[in-house]
Amino acid sequence: MNNEKKMHNVLVIHGPSLNMLGLREPNIYGNTRLDDINTELKKLGKTIGICVETFQSNSESAIIGALQKNLEKISGLLINAAAFTHTSIAIRDALLLHTVPIIEVHLSNIYKRESFRHKSLIADIATGQLSGFGVNSYYLGLRAMADILNTPDS
Amino acid sequence: MNNEKKMHNVLVIHGPSLNMLGLREPNIYGNTRLDDINTELKKLGKTIGICVETFQSNSESAIIGALQKNLEKISGLLINAAAFTHTSIAIRDALLLHTVPIIEVHLSNIYKRESFRHKSLIADIATGQLSGFGVNSYYLGLRAMADILNTPDS
Amino acid sequence: MNNEKKMHNVLVIHGPSLNMLGLREPNIYGNTRLDDINTELKKLGKTIGICVETFQSNSESAIIGALQKNLEKISGLLINAAAFTHTSIAIRDALLLHTVPIIEVHLSNIYKRESFRHKSLIADIATGQLSGFGVNSYYLGLRAMADILNTPDS
Amino acid sequence: MNNEKKMHNVLVIHGPSLNMLGLREPNIYGNTRLDDINTELKKLGKTIGICVETFQSNSESAIIGALQKNLEKISGLLINAAAFTHTSIAIRDALLLHTVPIIEVHLSNIYKRESFRHKSLIADIATGQLSGFGVNSYYLGLRAMADILNTPDS
Amino acid sequence: MNNEKKMHNVLVIHGPSLNMLGLREPNIYGNTRLDDINTELKKLGKTIGICVETFQSNSESAIIGALQKNLEKISGLLINAAAFTHTSIAIRDALLLHTVPIIEVHLSNIYKRESFRHKSLIADIATGQLSGFGVNSYYLGLRAMADILNTPDS
Amino acid sequence: MNNEKKMHNVLVIHGPSLNMLGLREPNIYGNTRLDDINTELKKLGKTIGICVETFQSNSESAIIGALQKNLEKISGLLINAAAFTHTSIAIRDALLLHTVPIIEVHLSNIYKRESFRHKSLIADIATGQLSGFGVNSYYLGLRAMADILNTPDS
Amino acid sequence: MNNEKKMHNVLVIHGPSLNMLGLREPNIYGNTRLDDINTELKKLGKTIGICVETFQSNSESAIIGALQKNLEKISGLLINAAAFTHTSIAIRDALLLHTVPIIEVHLSNIYKRESFRHKSLIADIATGQLSGFGVNSYYLGLRAMADILNTPDS
Amino acid sequence: MNNEKKMHNVLVIHGPSLNMLGLREPNIYGNTRLDDINTELKKLGKTIGICVETFQSNSESAIIGALQKNLEKISGLLINAAAFTHTSIAIRDALLLHTVPIIEVHLSNIYKRESFRHKSLIADIATGQLSGFGVNSYYLGLRAMADILNTPDS
Amino acid sequence: MNNEKKMHNVLVIHGPSLNMLGLREPNIYGNTRLDDINTELKKLGKTIGICVETFQSNSESAIIGALQKNLEKISGLLINAAAFTHTSIAIRDALLLHTVPIIEVHLSNIYKRESFRHKSLIADIATGQLSGFGVNSYYLGLRAMADILNTPDS
Amino acid sequence: MNNEKKMHNVLVIHGPSLNMLGLREPNIYGNTRLDDINTELKKLGKTIGICVETFQSNSESAIIGALQKNLEKISGLLINAAAFTHTSIAIRDALLLHTVPIIEVHLSNIYKRESFRHKSLIADIATGQLSGFGVNSYYLGLRAMADILNTPDS
Amino acid sequence: MNNEKKMHNVLVIHGPSLNMLGLREPNIYGNTRLDDINTELKKLGKTIGICVETFQSNSESAIIGALQKNLEKISGLLINAAAFTHTSIAIRDALLLHTVPIIEVHLSNIYKRESFRHKSLIADIATGQLSGFGVNSYYLGLRAMADILNTPDS
Amino acid sequence: MNNEKKMHNVLVIHGPSLNMLGLREPNIYGNTRLDDINTELKKLGKTIGICVETFQSNSESAIIGALQKNLEKISGLLINAAAFTHTSIAIRDALLLHTVPIIEVHLSNIYKRESFRHKSLIADIATGQLSGFGVNSYYLGLRAMADILNTPDS
Repeated sequence: MNNEKKMHNVLVIHGPSLNMLGLREPNIYGNTRLDDINTELKKLGKTIGICVETFQSNSESAIIGALQKNLEKISGLLINAAAFTHTSIAIRDALLLHTVPIIEVHLSNIYKRESFRHKSLIADIATGQLSGFGVNSYYLGLRAMADILNTPDS
Repeated sequence: MNNEKKMHNVLVIHGPSLNMLGLREPNIYGNTRLDDINTELKKLGKTIGICVETFQSNSESAIIGALQKNLEKISGLLINAAAFTHTSIAIRDALLLHTVPIIEVHLSNIYKRESFRHKSLIADIATGQLSGFGVNSYYLGLRAMADILNTPDS
Repeated sequence: MNNEKKMHNVLVIHGPSLNMLGLREPNIYGNTRLDDINTELKKLGKTIGICVETFQSNSESAIIGALQKNLEKISGLLINAAAFTHTSIAIRDALLLHTVPIIEVHLSNIYKRESFRHKSLIADIATGQLSGFGVNSYYLGLRAMADILNTPDS
Repeated sequence: MNNEKKMHNVLVIHGPSLNMLGLREPNIYGNTRLDDINTELKKLGKTIGICVETFQSNSESAIIGALQKNLEKISGLLINAAAFTHTSIAIRDALLLHTVPIIEVHLSNIYKRESFRHKSLIADIATGQLSGFGVNSYYLGLRAMADILNTPDS
Repeated sequence: MNNEKKMHNVLVIHGPSLNMLGLREPNIYGNTRLDDINTELKKLGKTIGICVETFQSNSESAIIGALQKNLEKISGLLINAAAFTHTSIAIRDALLLHTVPIIEVHLSNIYKRESFRHKSLIADIATGQLSGFGVNSYYLGLRAMADILNTPDS
Repeated sequence: MNNEKKMHNVLVIHGPSLNMLGLREPNIYGNTRLDDINTELKKLGKTIGICVETFQSNSESAIIGALQKNLEKISGLLINAAAFTHTSIAIRDALLLHTVPIIEVHLSNIYKRESFRHKSLIADIATGQLSGFGVNSYYLGLRAMADILNTPDS
Repeated sequence: MNNEKKMHNVLVIHGPSLNMLGLREPNIYGNTRLDDINTELKKLGKTIGICVETFQSNSESAIIGALQKNLEKISGLLINAAAFTHTSIAIRDALLLHTVPIIEVHLSNIYKRESFRHKSLIADIATGQLSGFGVNSYYLGLRAMADILNTPDS
Repeated sequence: MNNEKKMHNVLVIHGPSLNMLGLREPNIYGNTRLDDINTELKKLGKTIGICVETFQSNSESAIIGALQKNLEKISGLLINAAAFTHTSIAIRDALLLHTVPIIEVHLSNIYKRESFRHKSLIADIATGQLSGFGVNSYYLGLRAMADILNTPDS
Repeated sequence: MNNEKKMHNVLVIHGPSLNMLGLREPNIYGNTRLDDINTELKKLGKTIGICVETFQSNSESAIIGALQKNLEKISGLLINAAAFTHTSIAIRDALLLHTVPIIEVHLSNIYKRESFRHKSLIADIATGQLSGFGVNSYYLGLRAMADILNTPDS
Repeated sequence: MNNEKKMHNVLVIHGPSLNMLGLREPNIYGNTRLDDINTELKKLGKTIGICVETFQSNSESAIIGALQKNLEKISGLLINAAAFTHTSIAIRDALLLHTVPIIEVHLSNIYKRESFRHKSLIADIATGQLSGFGVNSYYLGLRAMADILNTPDS
Repeated sequence: MNNEKKMHNVLVIHGPSLNMLGLREPNIYGNTRLDDINTELKKLGKTIGICVETFQSNSESAIIGALQKNLEKISGLLINAAAFTHTSIAIRDALLLHTVPIIEVHLSNIYKRESFRHKSLIADIATGQLSGFGVNSYYLGLRAMADILNTPDS
Repeated sequence: MNNEKKMHNVLVIHGPSLNMLGLREPNIYGNTRLDDINTELKKLGKTIGICVETFQSNSESAIIGALQKNLEKISGLLINAAAFTHTSIAIRDALLLHTVPIIEVHLSNIYKRESFRHKSLIADIATGQLSGFGVNSYYLGLRAMADILNTPDS
C-alpha cells in the first residue's frame, strides 16, 4: 500500500518462558527456537524497511527496564508478553510511556485457553492484536508494523 | 516461509454495514471501499496461491446460507462478522459445520470499544484472530491463511 | 392416557442449520435428514390425531413470519429454535402472540455444551422442554403435544 | 417553544411483531393498528413541520437496509426496535452511521418487564428515550423530535 | 386523541439541585431556570386541562412530606427525582402510597451517564419514563399525563 | 423406530415429597397418585420391552443406597430427583457410578419456577432431560429410554 | 389484641444439632437444654391456647417425614431449621405442602455470621421470621403464632 | 424467665411513611394507626417494666438527631427504619454510637418483597430481627427487649 | 513549595455524626471535639493563606444547601462526607456544581472497614483523597489545598 | 519430630459413596477397598500413637450423629466428606461442636474437577487440608494429625 | 500537635517506572524528577524529625528485598507501589513483616483511572492512604508519618 | 506401600519472604528457619529415596529460571509459591513445561485467610495440595512425593 519506505527501529519483546520455544517437545511445538524467530524477524525487517532489535526475559522488571531504555529510540514495539499479558499492570504502565505504535502478538489463540488468559492488560492500549498463528503471529505483526509506520500520517 | 504453494479457494465474509465502508466520512474512515478491499484481496490472493471469493451481507441468515452453500468447496474462511461477532450463535454454529481453518478479522481494535464488543462468539473456534489494523487486518489475515494452508500437515 | 382424540394442527419449527442434518459427517450425526424427520413426524401425527406442518429457516425473521402467519390456525407448536433459543427475544415475542401449548425440543443435551447455551429464552414460556434425545426429541415432543391437546381442560 | 419551523424528513422504524398491533386481543392491546399509528404520525407530522416516512420489519437486516438507504436523506430517526432493542448490536451500528437525532420509543414500560428487557443497546446513543405511554410514546416522540430539529443549534 | 377533557390536579416534583437550573453555566445548561419551567408547565397545563402545582426540594423527607400531604388531592404525579431516582427507596415507598399515574422525567439521558445512574428505583412503578429531552422532558411528560387522564378508563 | 427389542431392567427413582402426589389438592395436582404412575410405568414398560422397578424416598442417603445396590443390575435409570436435583452432589456422584443411560424428568417446567431451580446438578451427566409435561414426563421418558436401549450401538 | 382464643395444634421443628443445646459449653451457650425449651413451649402454649408438639432431627428426610405426617393435623408451624435453612429445598417443598402459617426462628442473628447463612430458603414462604433472641426466639415466635391464629380472618 | 424486673427506658423509632399507617386503604392495611401502636407499646411497656418513648420521622437526619439526643439516656432501641433499613449507612453509624441492645422490626416479611429490600444495613449490628408479623412485630420486639434487659448479665 | 500565597476561602464540610466526635468514648476516639478541629483548621489556615469556614450537618439536604449557597464564593472544598460518601449521589451532584478543587478526607481508613464503605461516590470527582490519619486527615488536606491553590496554573 | 507420644483416639469419617471404593472399575480406581484403607489406617495409627476408629455413611444425619456421639471422646478428626464437603452446612455445624483438630482429606484433587467442587464448607474450620494423593491422602493426614497431637502446646 | 519530637528513620519506597518522573513530557507531568522528590523529602524530614531513606525499583523482588533488609531498622514506611499496588500480594506480605506504620501514597487519584486500579492490595494494611495530590502526596504523607510517630502511644 | 525404591531428584521451591521464616516473632511463627526446613527435608529425603535440592527466591523470574534450568533433571517438584500462588501465571507456565509430579504446599491454611488467597493458579495443574500443617506441610509433601514416584506406573 505504500511505495516509499524509510528505515525504522522496532523493538520486539518476548515474555517469560518464550526462551524455551523449540527446546522441548518438538513434535508438539515444532523445532523453531526463539533464535530462529529473531533471525527471521531481522531478515524480514530488512526487506520491509525495519531494523529489528529483540529482547527476551522472564523478568517483569527487566522488560520494564528494556522499555524505559528504548524510550525515544524506537518507532514501534512488537510484544508477546506471554503470561505477563494478563497480570502485569507495571508493563502496561511502561508501555504507556511510549507513544509509538504497539502491536500485541500471541503464538496461541488465547481465547481457546483458561479463562484467566482471555483478559489482556495490553489490548486496549495496543494499535492491534494478533493471536493464534504460531510463530507467524510475529511475522504478520512485523508486516502490520511496517504498514503502520509507512502510512503517511499514522 | 513456504516455497511450493498450490491454489486454494478461500471465502471472505463481511458482516453487517461493512458495505458502507468508504462511503461515509472519508476523512475519518478513509476512502477505501469494500470493493477496493475485495479487489485487493483477490489480487493478493493470486500472488500467494489463493483464489478469493467474497460475500457481504447485513443478514445473519444470508451469511449462514453462504456458509452452508460453500461446505466442502473451500479450503479456508476469513470472516469479519462485525456486530454479529458478539451476538450470533447461529453463525458460530454454521462456522462449526466447516472443518477448514477460520481466521477472524476486525478493522478496529475491539478491545478499545464498548465492553459488549470484548466477547467474541467466534474467537474460540477460530485458528487465529487479527484486530485493529484497519483494512490491513484483511490482507494480513489472508497471508496468515496462505501460510496455514501451505504448511504440510496443518 | 386419552381415549377420544380429535385432529389437531401442529406446526413444527426448525431453526438455523437444522437443514444440514444428515448431510454431513453421517458417522457422527447419523444419516437422518431433516426430511426424514418431517416425514416421520407427519406419519406419527396421523396415528395420534395430529396434522403436522413443518417449517425450517436460517432466518429469524422468516421464523417470526411463520409464527405470525399461523396465528389462530394451529393448536400447538413444537420448536427447535437451535441457536436462536439463546439469542432471539424477537422469536420469544412472536411465540407470546400464541396462546396454544408450546413444546421446546433440542437434539443435543444443551446442558452439556457451552455455558451460553444453558440459558433458553423460550423455556419459561413453553409448556415443557425435551433435550438430549437426538431425533427422538421431536417424536417424544409430538406425543407430549398429543396428550396435552387431548386432555379435557388443558 | 419554537416559532419558526421548517419541514424535516423523519424516518419512523418499527421492529419485529409490531405489525401485529391491534390485530390480536383488542381487549388487551386496544384496537389501534400499526397503520393507524402511521397515519396518525403523518398527520401529526404535517402540523409540526415534519414529513414522516415509516418502515416496519421483522427482519434485522431489512431494518439495517432501511437505515443505510436513508443516510443523508433524513433529519431525524424515531425507532421502536422492539425485541431488537436488547439484542442487536448490528442495528446499533447502523444507527451509528447516522449523525441526526435518534429517539427511542417503547409502547410498554420496559422496566416493568423481564430483566433481559431492562438493558437497551440503543439508549446510550439516542438523544432521548420514551417508554410506557402506549401508542402515545410515538406521538410524544415525534413532538420531541420537532422541538429538537427546530431548536436553532441542536 | 381525546375530545372531552376535565380539569385535573397534577403535582410536579423536582429533586435535589434542580433549583440551580439556569443559574450556572448558561452556555452549557441554557438560561432556562426552574421558575421558567414551572411557569411554562402551568401555562401548558391550562391549555390541556391540567392544574399544575410544583414543588422542589433538596430534601428527601420534604419530598416525602409533599407526597403524603397530597394524597387523594391529585390526579397525577410528574417527578424528576434527580439523584434520588437512584438511591431513595423511601421516595419510592411514598410514591407507592399513591394510586394515580406517575410519570418519571429526566433532563439528561441517564443511560449516557455513570453506570450508577442506569438503575432507577422509580421506573418499575411509574406508568412511563422520559429521559434526555432537556426541559422538554417535562412538557412532553405533562402532555402524556393529560392523555392518560383523559383516556376514558385509564 | 426400532423393530427388535430385548427386555431391559430400568430403575425409576422418585425424590422427596413425590410420595404425596395425588393425596393433596386434587383439583390442582390431579388425582394421579405415585402408585398410579408406577403401575402405568410398569404396564407401558411391558409393551416396549422394559421391566420397570420403582423407588421413592425423601432421604438422600436412601436414594444413594438404591443407586449403589442396583449397580450392574440395570440397563437404564429414570430419575425425578425433585428438590435434590438442585442440591445433591452426592446423588450426582452416585449416578456417576453408573454407566447406563440416565434420563432426568420433571413434572413441572423448572424454568418457570424460582431461579434456584433453574440449575440442575444432574442435567450435564444425563443423556437427556424432560421437564414440564406433568406425569407424562415419566411416560415419555420411559419411551425415550426404550429407544436409546434398542438403538444398536448407543 | 384478641380476647377469645380457641385451642390450636402447633408443631415445633428443630433442625440438626439442636439436640446438643445446653449439653456443651454451658458458660457460652447457657444451660438451657432442648428439653427445657420444649417444656417451656408447651407450658407457654397452654396459657395462650396452643397445644404444642415438638420434633427434633438431624435428618432432612425425618423432618420431611414429620411435615408430611402432620398434614391437615396442625394449625401452625414453628421451625428452626438450623443449617437446613440455607441448603434444603426439599424441606422448603415439604413446607409448601402446608397452607397453615409458618414462622421461622433462629437462636443466633444469622446476619452476623458467615455470608452463606444470610440466605434463607424458608424466609420468603414464611409468614414471619425471628432471628437473634436466643431461646426467646422460640417463645416470641409462639406468641406471634397465637396472635396470627386468633386473628379472625388470617 | 425473669422474676425481678427494673424499669428501663426504651426508644422506639419509626422510619419514613409509617406515619401513614391506618390512614389509607384500611381494608388492606387495617385500621391500626401509628398512634394506636404507640399507645399499645407504652401500655405493654408498663406491664413488663419498660418506659417507652416513640419517635417517627420521614427524615434521615431527624432520626440521626433523635439517636444522638438519647445517647446514654436509654437502655434499649427498637427500630423499624422502613426504607432507610436498606439505604442509610448514616443511621447505621448513629446506631453504632449506642452500646445498648438494638432490635430491628419490620411489619412485612422483607424477604417476600423486591430484592433490594433483602439486604438490611442494620441486621448485623442488631441483637435480633423480627419481620413479617404486622403490628405484632413491635409488641413481640418489645417483649424480646424486656427479656434481654432483665437477663442478669446481658 | 510555593513562595507567594494569596488568601483563599475554603469551605470544610463535615457529614453525619461527626458532631459527636470526642463526646463519647474518649479512651477510644480521643478527646478531640469537632470544635477543636474547626479551631485548629482556622488557625492552620491563617498560616498558609486560607480563610476556613466550616459546616456540619447530619442532613443530606443541609449539606447540599451549604454547597449551593457557597457557589462562586469559595476557592476550594474539603469534605468528610462520612456515611454519605457511600450513599449520596445528591451530594455528588451538588459537588459537581463547583469547579474548584475538592479534597475528600476520612478519619478512619475506609478500606479497613465494611465492604460497603470501600466505594466512594466522591473519589472520582475529587482532586485527591486522604484516609486513615485521624483528625490529621483534615490538617493534611488543608495543606494539600493550599499547595493546589498556590500552584500557578492548577 | 516428636520423641514422646501418648495414645490418642482419632475418628476417621468417610462420606457418601466411599463405601464403593475398589468395587468398581479397578483398572481406574485401583483395587483398594475402603476396608483396606481402614485396616491400613489402624495399623499406621498404632505405630504413631493413635487409636483409629472409622465410620462411613451415605447419610448426612448419620455422620452428624457420629460426630455428636464422639464429643469429648476423641482427640482429633480426619474427614473425607466427599460430596457433603460442598453442600452440608449441617456437617460443618456438627464439626464446630468439636474443639479438637480437624483434618480434611480428599482422594482426588478437587481443584481439577467441576467448579462446584472448588468450594469446601469445611476448609476454613479445619486445621489443614490434603487433596489429590489418592488413598495416601488418608495416611498423610493421619501422620499430620499425630504431629499436631504430639506438639507440646498445639 | 506534638511539641517534642525525636529523630525517626523512615524508608520511602517508589515502585515501577517512577524513576521516569520528570524525564518525559514535562508539559504534562511537570519537571519534578524523582531525585528532586527525594531531596525534598530528606529536607522536609530534617525539619520534622525524620531521617529519610529512599529506594526505587522496577522489580518486585528488589522492593521485597529492601523491605526485608530494613526490618527493625525503621520506624515507618512510606510507599508508592505504583502498578504493584494492584497486583503484588508478595509486597503486601513483605509489608506485613513490619509492625511500624505504613502510609500508602499515589501521585494521581487512582479512583479516576481504570477500574483495575481501584483496588489496592495495600490499603487495608496501611495506617492511611493519600491519593491524587501529585508530588505533594509524598510530602503530606511524610508529615502524616511524623505526626503518627510523635503521638505518644500510637 | 512400596517395597523397592530408587533414588529420585526432587526440587523444593520456596517463594517470596519464606527466607524470613523463624527470623521474626519466634513466639508466633516458631523458631524453625528455612535452613532448618531444608536440612530436615534433605535428611528425610535420604530415608525415603529422594535427593532433595532447595531453592528460595523473592523473585518470580528467578523461580522461573530455576524451573527452566531443572527441566529433565528432576523427578518431582515440591512448591510453596507463597504469594505467587495467587498472582503468577508465569510460574504456572514454567511449571507446565515440566511433566513430573508437582505438589503444592502451604504453611498456613489458605482458606482461613483473605479471599484473594483462596484461588491458587497452581492447584489445578498440581497432583495434590497440602495446606495448613505448618512446616510439616513440607515433610508430608515430600512423603507424598516419594509414594507417587515409587508407585510402579504413576
